[in-house]
Amino acid sequence: MYRSHSCGELRASNNNQEVVLSGWVQKVRDKGFVIWADLRDRYGITQLIFDEERTSKELLEQARSLGREFVIQIKGTVIERSSKNPNIATGDIEVLVKELKVLNKALVPPFTIEDKTDGGEDLRMKYRYLDIRRNPVKNNLIFRHKVAMEVRKFLSDEGFIEVETPYLIKSTPEGARDFVVPSRMNEGQFYALPQSPQTFKQLLMVGGMDKYFQIVKCFRDEDLRADRQPEFTQIDCEMAFVEQEDILNVFENLTKYLLKEVKGFEIENFPRMTYDDAMRTYGNDKPDIRFGMEFGELNEVAQHKEFGVFNDAELVVGIAVPGAATYTRKEIDALIDWVRRPQVGAKGMVYAKYNEDGSFKSSVDKFYDQEDLAKWAAATGAKPGDLICVLSGDANKTRSQLSALRMELAERLGLRNPEEFAPLWVIDFPLLELDEETGHYHAMHHPFTSPKPGQLELLDSDPGAVKANAYDLVLNGNEIGGGSIRIHDKDMQATMFKHLGFTPEEAKAQFGFLMDAFQYGAPPHGGLAFGLDRLVAILGGQETIRDFIAFPKNNSGRDVMIDAPAKIDNEQLKELHLKLDLKA
Amino acid sequence: MYRSHSCGELRASNNNQEVVLSGWVQKVRDKGFVIWADLRDRYGITQLIFDEERTSKELLEQARSLGREFVIQIKGTVIERSSKNPNIATGDIEVLVKELKVLNKALVPPFTIEDKTDGGEDLRMKYRYLDIRRNPVKNNLIFRHKVAMEVRKFLSDEGFIEVETPYLIKSTPEGARDFVVPSRMNEGQFYALPQSPQTFKQLLMVGGMDKYFQIVKCFRDEDLRADRQPEFTQIDCEMAFVEQEDILNVFENLTKYLLKEVKGFEIENFPRMTYDDAMRTYGNDKPDIRFGMEFGELNEVAQHKEFGVFNDAELVVGIAVPGAATYTRKEIDALIDWVRRPQVGAKGMVYAKYNEDGSFKSSVDKFYDQEDLAKWAAATGAKPGDLICVLSGDANKTRSQLSALRMELAERLGLRNPEEFAPLWVIDFPLLELDEETGHYHAMHHPFTSPKPGQLELLDSDPGAVKANAYDLVLNGNEIGGGSIRIHDKDMQATMFKHLGFTPEEAKAQFGFLMDAFQYGAPPHGGLAFGLDRLVAILGGQETIRDFIAFPKNNSGRDVMIDAPAKIDNEQLKELHLKLDLKA
Repeated sequence: MYRSHSCGELRASNNNQEVVLSGWVQKVRDKGFVIWADLRDRYGITQLIFDEERTSKELLEQARSLGREFVIQIKGTVIERSSKNPNIATGDIEVLVKELKVLNKALVPPFTIEDKTDGGEDLRMKYRYLDIRRNPVKNNLIFRHKVAMEVRKFLSDEGFIEVETPYLIKSTPEGARDFVVPSRMNEGQFYALPQSPQTFKQLLMVGGMDKYFQIVKCFRDEDLRADRQPEFTQIDCEMAFVEQEDILNVFENLTKYLLKEVKGFEIENFPRMTYDDAMRTYGNDKPDIRFGMEFGELNEVAQHKEFGVFNDAELVVGIAVPGAATYTRKEIDALIDWVRRPQVGAKGMVYAKYNEDGSFKSSVDKFYDQEDLAKWAAATGAKPGDLICVLSGDANKTRSQLSALRMELAERLGLRNPEEFAPLWVIDFPLLELDEETGHYHAMHHPFTSPKPGQLELLDSDPGAVKANAYDLVLNGNEIGGGSIRIHDKDMQATMFKHLGFTPEEAKAQFGFLMDAFQYGAPPHGGLAFGLDRLVAILGGQETIRDFIAFPKNNSGRDVMIDAPAKIDNEQLKELHLKLDLKA
Repeated sequence: MYRSHSCGELRASNNNQEVVLSGWVQKVRDKGFVIWADLRDRYGITQLIFDEERTSKELLEQARSLGREFVIQIKGTVIERSSKNPNIATGDIEVLVKELKVLNKALVPPFTIEDKTDGGEDLRMKYRYLDIRRNPVKNNLIFRHKVAMEVRKFLSDEGFIEVETPYLIKSTPEGARDFVVPSRMNEGQFYALPQSPQTFKQLLMVGGMDKYFQIVKCFRDEDLRADRQPEFTQIDCEMAFVEQEDILNVFENLTKYLLKEVKGFEIENFPRMTYDDAMRTYGNDKPDIRFGMEFGELNEVAQHKEFGVFNDAELVVGIAVPGAATYTRKEIDALIDWVRRPQVGAKGMVYAKYNEDGSFKSSVDKFYDQEDLAKWAAATGAKPGDLICVLSGDANKTRSQLSALRMELAERLGLRNPEEFAPLWVIDFPLLELDEETGHYHAMHHPFTSPKPGQLELLDSDPGAVKANAYDLVLNGNEIGGGSIRIHDKDMQATMFKHLGFTPEEAKAQFGFLMDAFQYGAPPHGGLAFGLDRLVAILGGQETIRDFIAFPKNNSGRDVMIDAPAKIDNEQLKELHLKLDLKA
């Protein structure tokens, strides 16, 4: 038996007990006549004591030879501490060591195993197993487990069945790039790893499974932007015989349940907003509504004056930044530089200070008098003390730029409180999205999404105007889930594929099995998928998913710890009927 | 709202209620003046009634036009049935339909959607979504969900943390063939799909996670024997600071818990048997101990007589088949033919009937008298009325043949009761196994398994004799789990790789990260993995895993429903830096 207790378990009530503990040496403090060592495991830290009076010379020497991260086992007696440590759960006691066994020595770790480490990102990734010993990473992984368990509990109690769908499926040209897996037994053919179990969950609905869920890995071979992973985890759900309202209700309840169970946070409001309203009010289809700064459109009040920049703009739009009227010229210039950065792309920014005394001071006082500016304040909801920031230009771009500014300012003003949670449904998404490069429309959600009833005829005349029964769940400015009511009619699905540029042959080759299935009695159905990585990160009060993944990959898709991907044997290639085709 | 109730919900207490139901038409019985239709969903079947007195003509016509598997929605009134059907939960009521809406028509399904279907295996696989509508398949999937939920609950309550390990890892030459995934971003390099998360779970132990589990897909590119799948699901577990005993205790309790929760079956005995004893007593390292027929070795009592076949044999061994002394000559000849089949491979079989009157009648009466045969009976534990079946030859082969015969006879005699569960630990497995083709030893479990303390020195002198701290959990004659105490010392791991034929360079290239990790304070650790597919099948009283997998692949590794694997575009190949290398 390696231990009688964990390192987080002993209390004053254990005084005088003989115990066996195992763990890692966090640190050793050698005061000559007495040596303390902190022994750590997943559950906590227990202080060990060796002293000249009560400890043999040999044992003292042994204690002295311990290095950081040595793995040891000790036997000893629990004693009361002379000076208690209220910062740790075991702070009332220490263990007077009688026997010590080194189970494994340790080299000096490449970074300190402390809550605040001196290790950089690269080093921490290479030695991820050491990084996981640190409380912040360890606790994130335990938190993730807890969230996943609660999700399963909630959905299972609601009658959902977790069904495992296959990982070796078929490559489809739609959407992002697939990872493929060459088949040895089926020469010249490939499986693909699923980007999502979309078609399978729909087939489960055709199969009468009624309520399905799965917490499942998905794969996308995309050029990795920051904080994307080639493999990621989805909470994937589907329900039969439902309308959008039924689905929103279930997952609204799931969200409330999770926030309550894992954060102790009670949600009162669960607003819904159309995609169009979200774009108009926040310039963004995943607005953070923990704070205001809603967009005020200023075309009516700011155009038709002498100011050409505004007059030429499709949209003039502003936000009121709370309490920022006191910004110095320098601070405002920095803000203007910020919106001009290529990542944001604004040409410039007009501002108006709404002073505490009720007067206005703007960068365009030449064109706008106090009365004009008062109208800006009314449109943006500004109060005395606020700074009104105004952008103008092409409507879509300007909204997107102002959204970036709004988020940046909220961050700077500390309005994005990670312990506050404000979920929101964004509904009525467009069915199709124009690809500006190719001029073609593609599915905004995916090709199985149902247009809203009665809008099918618009597909020909005004494809961009067709709205879908599609919805996103937004939490604190992040899309954490999205879904739709699906098409369950073969002919409508065929029409949709046609509009997305599939020939009938292509549609049949790729999705024939699904359209076949629709002929054998497909029920109305719909569902959604949550991104578990993101959900856990946001519930954990952070936005970086990598910190919530045990073994993440870097931005080149590499696992630097195991050094993957890697070359494989020629023998393996040959068995797979493949040759490398490398650039010279 | 598509329904107010499910089709399995209504009872006599709902009489006179107005309800809305949705589901599939199971069948329609048209008696002219009255039409009944069975409406089915996941939850059950509700009888609908239309009759001339209370139903409009139009509605009657509509009812008449319904085909099997049409998806419909109805509104109606719950009424008491004149003749109740005690076979279904809703058998006390029926619903008098007032409105009917066809949500989706259905072609005639290619096989009947009934518990006993007329569909063959191939057709059922191609239309798996229809097969899933059938109770036996649907209930298997729901049962699987329940087992997985209970496993998670038990392990989580025991302090295990479910950690997701990566799917895109590195190919290793050890063990079975990997499926590989070409990397687009890392030219000429490949990921591999995990055969198990073995090294990652060990790294989690190095990382202090203490107790890890995961229900996880694993992948093996093997030539598929019957009832193997290229992708399969493991319950993967690992614990730190444990000895074998700790692990056996936890998973013994898990097994008991599962049997109780999902089967209502209480386990009293949970025996342990060494590998050597299992081979000697049952000729098999996964014995079914629901019944006896233990092996009786007969060398002492059957050799050194005039019977040359036995005298020349390394091993003479028999079993007592209960109540089979009455087998006719024809039945016994059929048994002899059975053991001679190439799949079994025995040269012949000697038998002795132990008659109810206490006399013996054997096929070798020429060589053995009644007293001799009584010794056979004593050695095999035969009782009057039993048939003693004896095989002889090379010890290993003969044990294996007799094991096959024992299982076959138990099957025929109905001794393999699917509602009885007899778990067993087989322990002390050999560390290494001789590959008879190559003459090399390879790891019986895997190269990370620790030899038993003090046996390391045998590695050079007698590698086959080294025993490991390795164990299998056997249930009803099936290995459902296996594991070991792992090596946690870098030098011992290096020694092990050397003995397995790795050069130091190969060991470093493949598993350097693990040996590096061992230098930074690796705790003693061990674990095991259960095969979820098999576990669920056996708990479900069956042995075919395919029936418990939603979308299984066939023996060529194909998904015949979606038709995967399939060809991919040349464009895709080019992006992956690959060319096909097909046979002419």
